[in-house]
Amino acid sequence: MTPIKPLDLSYSADIQSHIDQKTKPLGALGQLEDVAAKLALIASNKAGVLQKQVTITKPTAVVFAGDHGIAEQGVSIAPSAVTGQMVLNFLAGGAAINCFCAANQIDLHVVDCGILSEVATDNPNFHQQRLGQTTFDLSTQPAMATTQVEQGLALGANLALSLIDNGCDLILFGEMGIGNTSSASALLALLTDNDAQAVVGLGTGISTEQLNLKQKLVQQAIDRVKTTGNTDITKLLAEVGGFEIVQIVGAMLAAAEKQIPILVDGFIVSVAALVASKMDKQVTDYFIFAHQSQEQAHQLCLTELNAKPLLSLQLRLGEGTGAALAVPLLKSACHFYSHMASFADAGVTV
Amino acid sequence: MTPIKPLDLSYSADIQSHIDQKTKPLGALGQLEDVAAKLALIASNKAGVLQKQVTITKPTAVVFAGDHGIAEQGVSIAPSAVTGQMVLNFLAGGAAINCFCAANQIDLHVVDCGILSEVATDNPNFHQQRLGQTTFDLSTQPAMATTQVEQGLALGANLALSLIDNGCDLILFGEMGIGNTSSASALLALLTDNDAQAVVGLGTGISTEQLNLKQKLVQQAIDRVKTTGNTDITKLLAEVGGFEIVQIVGAMLAAAEKQIPILVDGFIVSVAALVASKMDKQVTDYFIFAHQSQEQAHQLCLTELNAKPLLSLQLRLGEGTGAALAVPLLKSACHFYSHMASFADAGVTV
Repeated sequence: MTPIKPLDLSYSADIQSHIDQKTKPLGALGQLEDVAAKLALIASNKAGVLQKQVTITKPTAVVFAGDHGIAEQGVSIAPSAVTGQMVLNFLAGGAAINCFCAANQIDLHVVDCGILSEVATDNPNFHQQRLGQTTFDLSTQPAMATTQVEQGLALGANLALSLIDNGCDLILFGEMGIGNTSSASALLALLTDNDAQAVVGLGTGISTEQLNLKQKLVQQAIDRVKTTGNTDITKLLAEVGGFEIVQIVGAMLAAAEKQIPILVDGFIVSVAALVASKMDKQVTDYFIFAHQSQEQAHQLCLTELNAKPLLSLQLRLGEGTGAALAVPLLKSACHFYSHMASFADAGVTV
Repeated sequence: MTPIKPLDLSYSADIQSHIDQKTKPLGALGQLEDVAAKLALIASNKAGVLQKQVTITKPTAVVFAGDHGIAEQGVSIAPSAVTGQMVLNFLAGGAAINCFCAANQIDLHVVDCGILSEVATDNPNFHQQRLGQTTFDLSTQPAMATTQVEQGLALGANLALSLIDNGCDLILFGEMGIGNTSSASALLALLTDNDAQAVVGLGTGISTEQLNLKQKLVQQAIDRVKTTGNTDITKLLAEVGGFEIVQIVGAMLAAAEKQIPILVDGFIVSVAALVASKMDKQVTDYFIFAHQSQEQAHQLCLTELNAKPLLSLQLRLGEGTGAALAVPLLKSACHFYSHMASFADAGVTV
């Protein structure tokens, strides 16, 4: 992969001054000012000249779906078959992410990264990029081969590049995969040197018994990987990753390489963001964090990424729902940055 | 005023069941489920039959502007003239609220409730409803006469009714008025039996010296009103209210009477909501709280109203900006409530 070019921060002072001349007390638009400044910095870097207008015209959500061998052990509220059923629901337009994309004018794409049963559809927004038929059970063996990781990173990257070629100027990531919080928790533990207790939560709402089992199995995975001595990110992804997580990482790195802002949602996607940051730390320049999830380990991951999400609505669904809900905030930030009057324009004497 | 009819809660069980059959774990859409349930309950009451589809088609923001005699004492970052300058900025489309309304397809109306200098304009979305030319200084005397309060409540109500006649199905309140946090703080203190220290904050960003002065003057107002023994709401509004606050209260009561949901924003508007609730407690059935402001006393007011706002973006601007930013969340809530598939529809086996 091409290394991501660091952002040229020399635009920042002019961007801040542009914001500070708007008809409002300094800083009065809070986090929206930070978002506007970040989007303006990315746009100015891309254009090679200070941008006093920024827009988001084609936000695109991509839901990556994959199944997980560990689900066989009963660590989720639902069986693996539900991943495929939900993929069909996405394609039929019936899921929460469909509703939020429709309500907020966001394009939606769905990717089969390796779910249990293949889906037959000619929906042009569906992408079959299967790395296999579910991963292996990460609590007992590597989830996949490193060649699958490499293939997944490339497939994710190529999809992002193709969406960007088609005009996508903001990319949102969502995921669906029964068992994928176990994978994300194991990755987070290994990347931050935590144990299972710190990183395993209730997912979409499991019982205490399931929680105990999930903690035990994730700890087993952590211990197993630690004995290998592997710290290389590709190898960690092979050990405890998921097909959808790998492809999200690849797509994030490609989006950043193309200087497209990335809207990060929820626990799984935030862990993918952390993984991507370990592969190329410059990718974090392009992250905007959408939603603080209810999953307890999400805060740990956000702290590691030095991130403060825009929303905290007690969502615990995934699919990219938090990101889709944050898109209007980004558009509003663009609008005030681009169109709000300055004190001089408006004749306001403060 | 006609008393507001209590909501018939017998629809609630069916509404919750409609939400719980959607393809997601129970409660997984967090606060958005609460918003959907509230909007559906209001719509079902209005229709007289359970509504399985709800929409917001014409959200309308109304910014009420008024000037305050206490501003002469230097308790704000800006002089009273800025209120009128900002009204002109609203009419020219240059303020933050204009940008957020434009970005989120919200109609915007502006009301002169009694600013320092009259505005000459034929803008059809401007309403001249002057109760005077600034209030008197509430720290030393009643801000207005009770006849002005009654006139203001009626003017606010009539404007809300006219907007609703024109199709408004969600009403957002904003305000502009140099000095109006002093008025709101005094009202809050008198309604909750607090002293000035608990209810006076930094407004849009005053100095410590100004903060001390503001606390002293607000305490003076509280003490002055307490010696009168008045607890009647109309009289409290006359003592320490503002022209814009009075009209917001009137408009809220009328909107609730017409069974239109009310999006409450920030500190000043929340205090107006508290005042309205003291005049008719049923009005609270129609409140949805948009944004947790940075003003320290806002939390006190929200606790009193048992409210948890949707957003917390460190805004401290007023104008209705927090409410405008929350509109897409309400639309998203309507969309999932109306269009998301049930488990049965989607063939999902959970």
